[in-house]
Amino acid sequence: MLMEECGVFGTYLKEGNIAPSYVVEGLMALQHRGQEAAGVSYTKGEKIESFKELGTVGAIFNKKTLSNMKGKISIGHVRYSTKGTPDITGAQPFTANYANSSFSIAHNGQIENSEKLKNELEKKGIIFLTDSDTEIVLHLLVSKLRKSPDKWTLEEISKIIFENIGPSYSLIIMFKNRMIAIRDKKGYRPLSFYEDEHGYYFSSEDCGLRFLSPNMKKIRDVKPGEAIEITEKGVKNVQYETQKYSHCFFEHVYFSRPDSNVFGRNAHQMRERMGEQCAIENPVDADIVVPVMESGLSAAMGYSKMSGIPVEMGLIRNRYIGRTFIHPEQTERKIGVKRKLTPIYEVIKNKRIILVDDSIVRGTTMTEIVDLLRQYRAREVHVRISSPAVVSTCSWGVNIPDKKELIASQKNVKQIEKHINADSLGYLSLKGVRKILNFDHENYCLHCFIKNNLEE
Amino acid sequence: MLMEECGVFGTYLKEGNIAPSYVVEGLMALQHRGQEAAGVSYTKGEKIESFKELGTVGAIFNKKTLSNMKGKISIGHVRYSTKGTPDITGAQPFTANYANSSFSIAHNGQIENSEKLKNELEKKGIIFLTDSDTEIVLHLLVSKLRKSPDKWTLEEISKIIFENIGPSYSLIIMFKNRMIAIRDKKGYRPLSFYEDEHGYYFSSEDCGLRFLSPNMKKIRDVKPGEAIEITEKGVKNVQYETQKYSHCFFEHVYFSRPDSNVFGRNAHQMRERMGEQCAIENPVDADIVVPVMESGLSAAMGYSKMSGIPVEMGLIRNRYIGRTFIHPEQTERKIGVKRKLTPIYEVIKNKRIILVDDSIVRGTTMTEIVDLLRQYRAREVHVRISSPAVVSTCSWGVNIPDKKELIASQKNVKQIEKHINADSLGYLSLKGVRKILNFDHENYCLHCFIKNNLEE
Amino acid sequence: MLMEECGVFGTYLKEGNIAPSYVVEGLMALQHRGQEAAGVSYTKGEKIESFKELGTVGAIFNKKTLSNMKGKISIGHVRYSTKGTPDITGAQPFTANYANSSFSIAHNGQIENSEKLKNELEKKGIIFLTDSDTEIVLHLLVSKLRKSPDKWTLEEISKIIFENIGPSYSLIIMFKNRMIAIRDKKGYRPLSFYEDEHGYYFSSEDCGLRFLSPNMKKIRDVKPGEAIEITEKGVKNVQYETQKYSHCFFEHVYFSRPDSNVFGRNAHQMRERMGEQCAIENPVDADIVVPVMESGLSAAMGYSKMSGIPVEMGLIRNRYIGRTFIHPEQTERKIGVKRKLTPIYEVIKNKRIILVDDSIVRGTTMTEIVDLLRQYRAREVHVRISSPAVVSTCSWGVNIPDKKELIASQKNVKQIEKHINADSLGYLSLKGVRKILNFDHENYCLHCFIKNNLEE
Amino acid sequence: MLMEECGVFGTYLKEGNIAPSYVVEGLMALQHRGQEAAGVSYTKGEKIESFKELGTVGAIFNKKTLSNMKGKISIGHVRYSTKGTPDITGAQPFTANYANSSFSIAHNGQIENSEKLKNELEKKGIIFLTDSDTEIVLHLLVSKLRKSPDKWTLEEISKIIFENIGPSYSLIIMFKNRMIAIRDKKGYRPLSFYEDEHGYYFSSEDCGLRFLSPNMKKIRDVKPGEAIEITEKGVKNVQYETQKYSHCFFEHVYFSRPDSNVFGRNAHQMRERMGEQCAIENPVDADIVVPVMESGLSAAMGYSKMSGIPVEMGLIRNRYIGRTFIHPEQTERKIGVKRKLTPIYEVIKNKRIILVDDSIVRGTTMTEIVDLLRQYRAREVHVRISSPAVVSTCSWGVNIPDKKELIASQKNVKQIEKHINADSLGYLSLKGVRKILNFDHENYCLHCFIKNNLEE
Repeated sequence: MLMEECGVFGTYLKEGNIAPSYVVEGLMALQHRGQEAAGVSYTKGEKIESFKELGTVGAIFNKKTLSNMKGKISIGHVRYSTKGTPDITGAQPFTANYANSSFSIAHNGQIENSEKLKNELEKKGIIFLTDSDTEIVLHLLVSKLRKSPDKWTLEEISKIIFENIGPSYSLIIMFKNRMIAIRDKKGYRPLSFYEDEHGYYFSSEDCGLRFLSPNMKKIRDVKPGEAIEITEKGVKNVQYETQKYSHCFFEHVYFSRPDSNVFGRNAHQMRERMGEQCAIENPVDADIVVPVMESGLSAAMGYSKMSGIPVEMGLIRNRYIGRTFIHPEQTERKIGVKRKLTPIYEVIKNKRIILVDDSIVRGTTMTEIVDLLRQYRAREVHVRISSPAVVSTCSWGVNIPDKKELIASQKNVKQIEKHINADSLGYLSLKGVRKILNFDHENYCLHCFIKNNLEE
Repeated sequence: MLMEECGVFGTYLKEGNIAPSYVVEGLMALQHRGQEAAGVSYTKGEKIESFKELGTVGAIFNKKTLSNMKGKISIGHVRYSTKGTPDITGAQPFTANYANSSFSIAHNGQIENSEKLKNELEKKGIIFLTDSDTEIVLHLLVSKLRKSPDKWTLEEISKIIFENIGPSYSLIIMFKNRMIAIRDKKGYRPLSFYEDEHGYYFSSEDCGLRFLSPNMKKIRDVKPGEAIEITEKGVKNVQYETQKYSHCFFEHVYFSRPDSNVFGRNAHQMRERMGEQCAIENPVDADIVVPVMESGLSAAMGYSKMSGIPVEMGLIRNRYIGRTFIHPEQTERKIGVKRKLTPIYEVIKNKRIILVDDSIVRGTTMTEIVDLLRQYRAREVHVRISSPAVVSTCSWGVNIPDKKELIASQKNVKQIEKHINADSLGYLSLKGVRKILNFDHENYCLHCFIKNNLEE
Repeated sequence: MLMEECGVFGTYLKEGNIAPSYVVEGLMALQHRGQEAAGVSYTKGEKIESFKELGTVGAIFNKKTLSNMKGKISIGHVRYSTKGTPDITGAQPFTANYANSSFSIAHNGQIENSEKLKNELEKKGIIFLTDSDTEIVLHLLVSKLRKSPDKWTLEEISKIIFENIGPSYSLIIMFKNRMIAIRDKKGYRPLSFYEDEHGYYFSSEDCGLRFLSPNMKKIRDVKPGEAIEITEKGVKNVQYETQKYSHCFFEHVYFSRPDSNVFGRNAHQMRERMGEQCAIENPVDADIVVPVMESGLSAAMGYSKMSGIPVEMGLIRNRYIGRTFIHPEQTERKIGVKRKLTPIYEVIKNKRIILVDDSIVRGTTMTEIVDLLRQYRAREVHVRISSPAVVSTCSWGVNIPDKKELIASQKNVKQIEKHINADSLGYLSLKGVRKILNFDHENYCLHCFIKNNLEE
Repeated sequence: MLMEECGVFGTYLKEGNIAPSYVVEGLMALQHRGQEAAGVSYTKGEKIESFKELGTVGAIFNKKTLSNMKGKISIGHVRYSTKGTPDITGAQPFTANYANSSFSIAHNGQIENSEKLKNELEKKGIIFLTDSDTEIVLHLLVSKLRKSPDKWTLEEISKIIFENIGPSYSLIIMFKNRMIAIRDKKGYRPLSFYEDEHGYYFSSEDCGLRFLSPNMKKIRDVKPGEAIEITEKGVKNVQYETQKYSHCFFEHVYFSRPDSNVFGRNAHQMRERMGEQCAIENPVDADIVVPVMESGLSAAMGYSKMSGIPVEMGLIRNRYIGRTFIHPEQTERKIGVKRKLTPIYEVIKNKRIILVDDSIVRGTTMTEIVDLLRQYRAREVHVRISSPAVVSTCSWGVNIPDKKELIASQKNVKQIEKHINADSLGYLSLKGVRKILNFDHENYCLHCFIKNNLEE
């Protein structure tokens, strides 16, 4: 499964001091964007305090923790980490103390020119206490603005960031008495903004703002190249000139919660249209369309609508999975994927199946699923992937493995089909993606679907 | 949500001593039948040991716990409790010590004549250490068979149980060197049996046996009125004469995992057919069919197939729910159901919606959902329930509230429609249920759908 | 270390409903009497509810747990278990349901005629759901009094218990609207009683009553052979005729908290006098007296006072012990007792040491300690034990191992001296014990110090 | 209670890769120096990894955590924090990434010129991600040595640290393939060094080395002004010229474990001598000497020896304390200190008591103890403090409150005596301290005992 690194949330209250509670509530809704660690920074008098821990939002925060966290301004972060061992050092937000003041940053994204920036900063004698790209932003701001963070203007901050830091970034920065949100000029990662009578809120996805009110019409995106500042006086913004955007298409394919609107498009509806287009491009005669729950469900519905072949729940996801209790050395049985996904025999047996999933990364899981369906007597298994084949890795925040591990980088469609033992295999084409995006495809990053900058 | 009380699992190994590991693995798959407590009994030399705790299977058992639990014979239990406060005293299996030996019981069901049996036993000076019906079974066996449990024959045990204990029960009893499974003559609750080269296994639902092998064809039901004994010599059974069965229809409506085959019918497919029949009986012109995830999904698919109106994911269930962090006293906002279910605005707005769920109990949640859809600008909300209205409580193991709390016991369909503020409301009829069950409906218990023994 | 099985606490409030909070507070103070499990029973309307869990009182109970536990009457129990695997089934109090009512029992002790009682009860068709002696009491009362527990009189209850159940027992029984405390006629285990303006309280040791008030003069013992009943009307008691008592001398040696007054004697002061008498009987020329902290401290002070040789803290107990992190397979080093007890080199080196401990059971730990002192250059190590040699096992509640494992049952003093590699070894004599107890020694059980009913 | 901030431990193994296990074992023994957080850094191939968490060593580390932590070189840290809210950001060790390499630091102490150093570094554009003094060391080294940490020589490192950083510091620095330990020229905090056939070890106190071997004679101090480097080639050291030392006297008074040898003196023995001297200076006619366990025990023994008045255990510390279960709003009773310390009535009543403790900070606890003893009928209570009155705060690592909160800064001895309601009060004098330290007192820091640089 491809995973992204992080979700961010920020709250600036017009009145009251429970901003951290709002942030935690929002992080709960963004939990799907990162489960390794979570953290919150908040104002406490003239200081900024932080609370970070390994684990899920629900496990870390509770009434007691929150009772100690009061403030008017707060930002938070959920983190997914690519490293094997969970490490608290990388948990955000990061707070920097400088010139008798401080500021705190929560960042979603991955900075493409991080090596270059690090080298330049190191030449100035700057060290890095974490492995995180985000730390660069803190140092860069200070090294350019040698004065109290409280005196940095929105214009100064945004100029430094937009002119130096390569995408991708959706940033929320809090100071003692204001908050700034910034989104890179390419708009790789989403970032939403909402204001109501109680305060101002930023959230990676607008699903994080759902708990606030039914009147969601006032939600808008922080625009690519835009920086928004919230102070006592209200909202102020700076808009940098931008050209083409590079919205990450994988936000539509997999990351976002289905009810989120990302880049102006609802995630569930996009997936349905990807399923429809995949059906147009890869028709096959079959009895039922079976989604790989839960991520494939929207796309399977689209495939079904277009093909007229009914969706059936042929694979059930077990909500209560955990460790395996019978260990491999104790038995010749292979349990593996069977504990997570179980086929419904009555639905599967003797059927010609169109199996719909959102992507294939290494091919291991898909091979197991096809095998499982055959054990349950599926007559034919036709695999349909509702996005193009992933052939390249990513420098803007998606944790795609090395090319060597990407099956589509090593094999062509026929070879993959054979590898996973499918009766047929079809991907959504890049042309199909462009068609779905209408004339907007030039504003999307489709880099991971493109090999050596040459299309298939 | 209606809830059932418990799932049971048993393992008798032909070789090796990791029967408890098999039981825990099986309980993982039965977790949906009870999350309050879990327990395992197992042989340790000539003794039977137990390990029980409050919590989910995954939280209670781990490598370390299991390393101390070795034995050839083991039974286990997951418990759902109707009481507010979790209480370890009622956690099963129950182990009885008698005449220098012992036996242990895991029970799914609720005994209809428990009061009468308790009174008779109390007259003999017997006390009850728990509130559980199951304890009656232990006392009854001993009070009738005044000798070491090891000398009780299958015939003696089954005669006492079948002739005295009213349904419902699916029981697994373990002794130092054998295991007996018994299912009441009416067959209220399911119980599956499987044998392979390693051992014998009993499970409340056959989904609990899925991890053992792809060759599931050898699974069979313990029949109503049947008692099966496993010893070193193999399998022996006793079959009591039975007449009509009383399979609990709610196993099809809600309890069973969709991939389970219960009473010879696949749960998912049954739900689809209930949705289809509901569509035939309650047609309405609309734009989309929206399931109340996850339980309503199968029925919604059936409704869609029959009506030709497409299923759409208009409501998303948040996988990561937990406590609320913003407390009511802090804000005038009502969060409630919004955190669990979030509508997709783009799917909902301006649409005429057919909302499909499996049942309405008190009506509270459904009222909130309809309200939520209207906030998201649904044009019309037509509620369709894929089972008949629940009007009576249950004495055979389903935790249905008092009639006073059952909305359908207090109001008619029109009144409920108004109460939940739906544009229209339609239930599956009892006639429809009979039709779906074909000529088999007389073998089902439909008691909770019938008021005063008079149909609507 | 010898360990006893359990502590009990009971509260009957004249006003208010937080009796369970009092019980938990009391159990905290009795924690040293059992750390495996803890439980509380309490009235909830007409019912008795229970909450029991494995673990220490502090780990089990908290604000949240207690907020659900309200009642006027409550009893509680801390359990030490002799079995390797912790088992929740044996956690007390035990609650019995009978004849539409119920009662709950907490028991400290071990019933000497339990096998006989069990056999008799089993002949009546009674089974045992636990391994605990305590369950016998429940069954016995019901089998003799076939009516609602609410109608049992104090006279009936105490007659059945005193005439049938062999010691040892200090029992607290709660009903829906009263509480009864009973102590066996021999007075093996302690039990204290206290009344103030808020309510009535029973506690295994009076240290459990310390939190209630500074005015502790009103504390009295429940007398051997006495049963005390608390109802709305106040206190009522029944006193059975008793002859000699059999107070467990090990309560003085080790079990009780130093500040407790047990059998009319302060535990710390008794230990001091045992140390003094041991000094009289086993004089030796040495430089310092070193206690094995913490249990040996009082006795060492006594030894020092009498001998004039100063006490020195030559061994420090590490408060923060836990698991070992360097595993034996990884190194040839033996860590063992060194992590718990560390000698102070400057105090130990070149010194002739009198090492004072309260008892030797198997001899393993003492051997390690002597070895450790020699590694730290002690010149001589003279071991002094402030109680007589333990040579027999116990049937009244002390968890003494089999004779085969008791070093003093297998070896004489000279042999033990050699085994533990001491320069000399001296025990307090039985005569010395009698002298300390003055003319009261016939009211004490000294059974574990006596081999085959013949003194050394 | 005064508390210090931290303990450090380091291991460089000659063979094998379980250095982190040794470090965790050592941290267990240093747990008394900090319970808020613990952490370990270790080599993993060419990288340095860290694992830090809030909580005690025993709660954080286990077999599973350690199984992922393998390396030849490892350092660790236990942290006590002065802030109310535990904060993971300040947990050590700190690891800095620079110039494609990294190094990690564990620090015990507090840097007196930290503000000046921070200002200088901030002028160079350096920010601080934590509130910890320790971070200064990382930045300072890099800002002075602009090359890969692997190329920094022992001479360069020690020169920068000794010439720039004010005391107090006992530092352990690890690199990919070597370890350096440095102690400030004044020797405020202790640091021990040990070598055996398996490796090299540094520990804040030598009690942390106790588990390694009985042969502790090879332990030596890292000297004030000394830096020791461990590489594959063995040990190398640099010694800076030093003049007078400033050993922290509070290490003797309270911090160190009694079995530790700190500044060449055993902690327990020093405390005894302080008690003796206090007796000489503050004689009083009384019946018994009662220590405030556990910290006052050694001093009480000294007082007793000198005065000839016997030590008695009149106050027992409850090992199992935790939260209070009966809340103030529920009862007029004040529980407070009574749950932690309980007097023994039989020891206390009618006695003239000399109560010995190591220090009085705010006076709150002492007032409660005296009150408690009077409730238990003590005839007289004479308080003796085995160190001089604490009148000034500390800049070198001891968490002493503001002068306003220090009772001895606000009141004279007579006034304090009255405040705590003692019959008499006596402190050890500064002259007495000097006498105990013989001619070595000029090598100690006694700053917190001195008001305005003028002695009492």
